[in-house]
Amino acid sequence: YGKNTIKFLRLHREGKKQFVKEVEVCAHLRLTSPQEYLEGNNSLVIPTDTIKNIVLVLAKKNGIPSLEQFAIDICNHFMTTFCQVAYVKAYVQEVPWQRLHEDGVPHIHSFICVPDGIRFCEAEQCRNGPLMVFAGIKDLKLMKTTQSGFEGFYKNEHTTLPERHDRILCGELFCKWSYGECKDFDFNCIWKKIRECILEAFAGPPDCGEYSPSYQKTVNCIQMFVLSRVSQVQVIEVVLNNTFYNVVDMKNLGLTNDKEVLVPVEAPYGSCACTLGRKKFFEA
Amino acid sequence: YGKNTIKFLRLHREGKKQFVKEVEVCAHLRLTSPQEYLEGNNSLVIPTDTIKNIVLVLAKKNGIPSLEQFAIDICNHFMTTFCQVAYVKAYVQEVPWQRLHEDGVPHIHSFICVPDGIRFCEAEQCRNGPLMVFAGIKDLKLMKTTQSGFEGFYKNEHTTLPERHDRILCGELFCKWSYGECKDFDFNCIWKKIRECILEAFAGPPDCGEYSPSYQKTVNCIQMFVLSRVSQVQVIEVVLNNTFYNVVDMKNLGLTNDKEVLVPVEAPYGSCACTLGRKKFFEA
Amino acid sequence: YGKNTIKFLRLHREGKKQFVKEVEVCAHLRLTSPQEYLEGNNSLVIPTDTIKNIVLVLAKKNGIPSLEQFAIDICNHFMTTFCQVAYVKAYVQEVPWQRLHEDGVPHIHSFICVPDGIRFCEAEQCRNGPLMVFAGIKDLKLMKTTQSGFEGFYKNEHTTLPERHDRILCGELFCKWSYGECKDFDFNCIWKKIRECILEAFAGPPDCGEYSPSYQKTVNCIQMFVLSRVSQVQVIEVVLNNTFYNVVDMKNLGLTNDKEVLVPVEAPYGSCACTLGRKKFFEA
Amino acid sequence: YGKNTIKFLRLHREGKKQFVKEVEVCAHLRLTSPQEYLEGNNSLVIPTDTIKNIVLVLAKKNGIPSLEQFAIDICNHFMTTFCQVAYVKAYVQEVPWQRLHEDGVPHIHSFICVPDGIRFCEAEQCRNGPLMVFAGIKDLKLMKTTQSGFEGFYKNEHTTLPERHDRILCGELFCKWSYGECKDFDFNCIWKKIRECILEAFAGPPDCGEYSPSYQKTVNCIQMFVLSRVSQVQVIEVVLNNTFYNVVDMKNLGLTNDKEVLVPVEAPYGSCACTLGRKKFFEA
Repeated sequence: YGKNTIKFLRLHREGKKQFVKEVEVCAHLRLTSPQEYLEGNNSLVIPTDTIKNIVLVLAKKNGIPSLEQFAIDICNHFMTTFCQVAYVKAYVQEVPWQRLHEDGVPHIHSFICVPDGIRFCEAEQCRNGPLMVFAGIKDLKLMKTTQSGFEGFYKNEHTTLPERHDRILCGELFCKWSYGECKDFDFNCIWKKIRECILEAFAGPPDCGEYSPSYQKTVNCIQMFVLSRVSQVQVIEVVLNNTFYNVVDMKNLGLTNDKEVLVPVEAPYGSCACTLGRKKFFEA
Repeated sequence: YGKNTIKFLRLHREGKKQFVKEVEVCAHLRLTSPQEYLEGNNSLVIPTDTIKNIVLVLAKKNGIPSLEQFAIDICNHFMTTFCQVAYVKAYVQEVPWQRLHEDGVPHIHSFICVPDGIRFCEAEQCRNGPLMVFAGIKDLKLMKTTQSGFEGFYKNEHTTLPERHDRILCGELFCKWSYGECKDFDFNCIWKKIRECILEAFAGPPDCGEYSPSYQKTVNCIQMFVLSRVSQVQVIEVVLNNTFYNVVDMKNLGLTNDKEVLVPVEAPYGSCACTLGRKKFFEA
Repeated sequence: YGKNTIKFLRLHREGKKQFVKEVEVCAHLRLTSPQEYLEGNNSLVIPTDTIKNIVLVLAKKNGIPSLEQFAIDICNHFMTTFCQVAYVKAYVQEVPWQRLHEDGVPHIHSFICVPDGIRFCEAEQCRNGPLMVFAGIKDLKLMKTTQSGFEGFYKNEHTTLPERHDRILCGELFCKWSYGECKDFDFNCIWKKIRECILEAFAGPPDCGEYSPSYQKTVNCIQMFVLSRVSQVQVIEVVLNNTFYNVVDMKNLGLTNDKEVLVPVEAPYGSCACTLGRKKFFEA
Repeated sequence: YGKNTIKFLRLHREGKKQFVKEVEVCAHLRLTSPQEYLEGNNSLVIPTDTIKNIVLVLAKKNGIPSLEQFAIDICNHFMTTFCQVAYVKAYVQEVPWQRLHEDGVPHIHSFICVPDGIRFCEAEQCRNGPLMVFAGIKDLKLMKTTQSGFEGFYKNEHTTLPERHDRILCGELFCKWSYGECKDFDFNCIWKKIRECILEAFAGPPDCGEYSPSYQKTVNCIQMFVLSRVSQVQVIEVVLNNTFYNVVDMKNLGLTNDKEVLVPVEAPYGSCACTLGRKKFFEA
């Protein structure tokens, strides 16, 4: 199969007000015949350059009302135009430009990049199969400075980790969910709601939080919360890359460090991941 | 000279409310004698490990009321403790953790990383010289989708660039200013004000913006505006890394592209930089 | 499941001569029960810290005779020690330290890092299943300055790419193969032979090369050549990330550029990938 | 001032044999008047696009016999063509393509990227001043597994580092030297000789090495050795970024670790730097 990445900007005006969408699109194609590989016969090959042109033309004609709709448009175009395409996947990721505000007043044409979680989506289709839509958020860095511990784990002769009931929980979240075959949702609105659900499930109530007994349990809480609040989500995958922090031992320096100064533990680092659906449970 | 980088987290509580500051500190030291280099005589060398301990102890004892105050504390410690130190510079950079909010309510112990411009500062001192304080912002990505052009430039036989009066202005801003010897400022408050000035000077009035005839002129506008609004700033340096976008020519594809679809031009890329002081002008 | 990464150095001496192996190990574990996720019950969880200790103890006890043997050791340890482990995968990657030579004489304890292709391997096992061994090379950057073209491809109204019979072929190669269940091979020797086969298949005979009609065909040539020369390889996957170069049009500058000056085309970039086995053919 | 980066490939043929040079050129210009910044008057500004064209035309016309000669050509062109240029610096860096060999036979048109130290150079000139030439190597990673220690350093109440007489010495080297105003050297030959001198001074004799009492002393040894062996070098700057490794304490795991298993210490990391000239000594 082949994969191609294109970056571009889509501008749009309403009166004097300007709107901007900068995206990176990655199109995966698999053809019905492997003759290009086996025989060096290029007659069915769609060049990278043509794929780029198609993506830019679709952006010009349709705009990008939502990342998901644009990914669906790309899939539809390749499936309907090229009978040699057996499979197509369109991945779309957004550069997080936000409109600038001055004293609360939105600026008509100025933007600032605010990468606090990157929005992405995927649409994929096999010939004669359904068009499936996915969306997600990545590079979302979160931290809880208390209400997190790790106790009661399995121990043997290789165990040196002490039990802790008040540690830092910090990590980078990747979250991807499936909308199934449904394509008429208000994708922008749902995405914002899911992002809020993730933050709420991670943090717990603002006045007291909620105790996390492990990264794994926090992953599960996020999944359960999204599934319970957003009915359009069918399956949700969460990966949490852990960043551990150790309280610095200052005894040799004559000081008591009451969880005030901590250093990140660069190695080992880890991640935990889980995929959760509506009826069946499957851990990947 | 020697340079050392330490990353750590400083937690602080007020009642049940938690505060977090994650910083990266880089300490540069130069000793009065080069004997470590020439003779392999280590008797005056302060090991990296000791420097790390000192930085962590200072964070534990003093906290980090502002990056600038912490950098000043480090300089003072090295100058007063080690007579073999001829020069010290402390660079401090912040991981941009922001308190999470749920429906407008601030969370007592949960944070999200929002890297829309990184705050940093420097304090430096030569033995018997004044302690100088600098602050700045970096990795601040900004875009204007109109009100920018580039015309009337020098032309000769190697010129192929057309003149443009409506292009995209997009770039990554680095900005560093000097407070001179003054150390009793409200550094947190001034930094926020300067960040606002930068955004305002870049964007112009929210309802119409302000035409930029070049990246260079925009750099100068930012400097002039900060100097005019923030009296504590003595000298200001601005570097703007340009990201150029070209309107895609769609004639061959049978379409008219009215500045709707643009692609980033990866090479050449460039930057322009200028340093501006209060009385004298010097271009670096 | 969970994933953990550990970096370390394994030293080994024979007389005064020193040997070094620096590796990054990533261990993936899946437990038989999801109770840690669902109930926050940690009683079966093997902490990251314990996994790190085990990997380091195995390196101390067994050394690293080959990356593959070390990955096998890790899998075996987890499967035989922990009955709650349902699946284990050990990925091992090497930092490419090479012994320094002075006038052809090898140095007894000095090394230089030469990253011209990174060696890695994987061993994986499900409980009650076979232990499977994989190896590979990644980040291998290759270029042919001639004997490459791309012609006869599919064309329609979105095609703007001209046909070319003398272009640059440049890319970054990822190659991963399976040894099946066999674990008693001389993995170091086979790996070196496969690397040579890849280079030979990519470049063709030293005096004339071999014409490549597409990246896809070159990918297939590499696979076919490795399968024909190295009997221990069962299945081979190759991914080639393309870097395109365009001949600069210098007509406006009054010059004829006969494929002398070319600029890299940053977007779109692409890759092509194929997996090839011994009897059955399957394109991924 | 302004800065521009251009990447390109320069091909060259002798009979059927092909030669390739891929470089990244960064041109810094400062104009005699700041009017572009102050007044938005672009009449003297040389656009990035024009600078790109000039660099590509020079590469087409002159080829790249050496990085240094190409940097000199660029400086000369800007100084003689544009009277508004007050200062020009050309930095040139090479992508380390090496000719492929099959069984010792060089291939006529295939290359592999071998980044074991990146070659670069700089030429700079102020109007009415001399043209100065610099060259260097960067990203050169070296390791000695023994014959290195660190003892007798300064101690006080913040010292926790133990003395060590057998540690790992590992780091990334940056080295830059000046040829002064001389421009008729065989730059390719001298560069290779200096690279060999650096490796030899770092490693010591192949059969026994040479004890290093500190990173600083090793930096100095490299400088002294290059200055003593290569008469064309006038001043030499060396920066060594340290990577520290700690022997893993395995007592709690019931094992004695005789410097067999070590882990990298990610923080603090540091570097030491020194600049050394022929007659005068100056530490930067």
